[in-house]
Amino acid sequence: MSDAGVTSRSITRVTRGGREVTDDAVVVERALEIRLAERSLSVTLRTPGDDEELVLGFLGGEGIVRRRADVTGMDARAAECSDEPDVLDVHLAPGIAIDWTKLERAFISSSACGLCGRAHLETMRARLAPVASSLRLDPKALLAWPATLEQHQRSFQLTGGIHAAALANARLELEVLREDVGRHNAVDKVCGWLLERGRYPLGGGVLWVSGRAGAEIVLKAARAGIAVVAAVGAPSSLAVELAEAARLCLIGFLRGERFNVYAGADRLLS
Amino acid sequence: MSDAGVTSRSITRVTRGGREVTDDAVVVERALEIRLAERSLSVTLRTPGDDEELVLGFLGGEGIVRRRADVTGMDARAAECSDEPDVLDVHLAPGIAIDWTKLERAFISSSACGLCGRAHLETMRARLAPVASSLRLDPKALLAWPATLEQHQRSFQLTGGIHAAALANARLELEVLREDVGRHNAVDKVCGWLLERGRYPLGGGVLWVSGRAGAEIVLKAARAGIAVVAAVGAPSSLAVELAEAARLCLIGFLRGERFNVYAGADRLLS
Repeated sequence: MSDAGVTSRSITRVTRGGREVTDDAVVVERALEIRLAERSLSVTLRTPGDDEELVLGFLGGEGIVRRRADVTGMDARAAECSDEPDVLDVHLAPGIAIDWTKLERAFISSSACGLCGRAHLETMRARLAPVASSLRLDPKALLAWPATLEQHQRSFQLTGGIHAAALANARLELEVLREDVGRHNAVDKVCGWLLERGRYPLGGGVLWVSGRAGAEIVLKAARAGIAVVAAVGAPSSLAVELAEAARLCLIGFLRGERFNVYAGADRLLS
Repeated sequence: MSDAGVTSRSITRVTRGGREVTDDAVVVERALEIRLAERSLSVTLRTPGDDEELVLGFLGGEGIVRRRADVTGMDARAAECSDEPDVLDVHLAPGIAIDWTKLERAFISSSACGLCGRAHLETMRARLAPVASSLRLDPKALLAWPATLEQHQRSFQLTGGIHAAALANARLELEVLREDVGRHNAVDKVCGWLLERGRYPLGGGVLWVSGRAGAEIVLKAARAGIAVVAAVGAPSSLAVELAEAARLCLIGFLRGERFNVYAGADRLLS
């Protein structure tokens, strides 16, 4: 993979010793629209690079093509709202039939990812209202939080293979923790818990996620009116951009008594 | 989360010292179909438990419901092919309009996960042909493999936030490695690389993935005719079941000079 898959962001690094502003490498995440016979087949969030392989492998896995010759050409072009080659037109060989009825059935969602079919950042940004909250966090409390959370992650301790999402208030008092094999599902469960209680959108709160923070996690949090997303793992470039648009504080690598702030550092108390 | 989210599997644990058959806890992964007004809205792979919260949160994130009262009831029932409550019928309050045109647009795929819209294990199993390969692996070579792979993962070293998929032959000689913010995408890129070379399905080979091994990764590998999937992280219950159906060797926790075999242990040389 080329260096186009990585970008640099200015971040605030926080440890027990204090904070510093520095640069950090962030993986690039952008939407790719796959078009077949001039119709939109799929929109996937990917790291740019090897796009033609990605599309071939996807079409192979779906049984749409069986050999390279089934595809006569692939044209990359920019979407209307950007200059990046985020649309790929696939041309199939004559005789390769597409049963759209079957495909539309096959592709009716899944994944609960919150981004299905929404190709472009501008569209996503346009749907985001800034989170209405004056919440500010004590960085020292945040550094100490992971140790508390670990005690609550029962299934992870058993299997080592499950994601968790947790919601806390501004004092980092835990309100709910949910586990699931899918990170998006764990976040949906937390959001459903808020809805059950008439607290959606919340207008505050801190959402902790056990893995990485991709665009779809930030989008779900922003729609739920959550002010801070803190991830154990790394954020993507699109997650950072969406967090900025929603005025949401995005924290990554919250572990081992350190964390990085990728957006909304003004939500940290000094 | 209840213990229903975890199941026990018999596995073979391999270290430098030898191998032992033991039991291991595995996270449960099952498809959940969300139905609205007697139509299928979405199929998601989830860990059973808190299903109603999951569905409410999903509907909230999609802007379909805005408050708890928008949903008048949710009925869980079994799918035709199983006894588990894997179908949830959602009843909306009168006056909550559903624009299916908009939804179908919104849900047209994404995620390239290979499971979209395929609700049930039996359906998935039925689509799987056993991988035709006599490949057998030297466990000692496998124990030493992670050290080699790390040298090739350039973007991960930079960002700490990217997934990788790699393909090797039976002697674990690396053929291709691809990186992406999405694990499924990295696997699709490797499969596309095979397709480009007229080697799809492969009938052999070892696919390494940097994260966990969910059902969709095993499904993509099986369709590509790959004989072994080796993951750094944990597999799910559905991944193990699909690997068994495809006679594919499924390895988890390949790191620190150890690994666990969850299916197809006969593909290891003694």
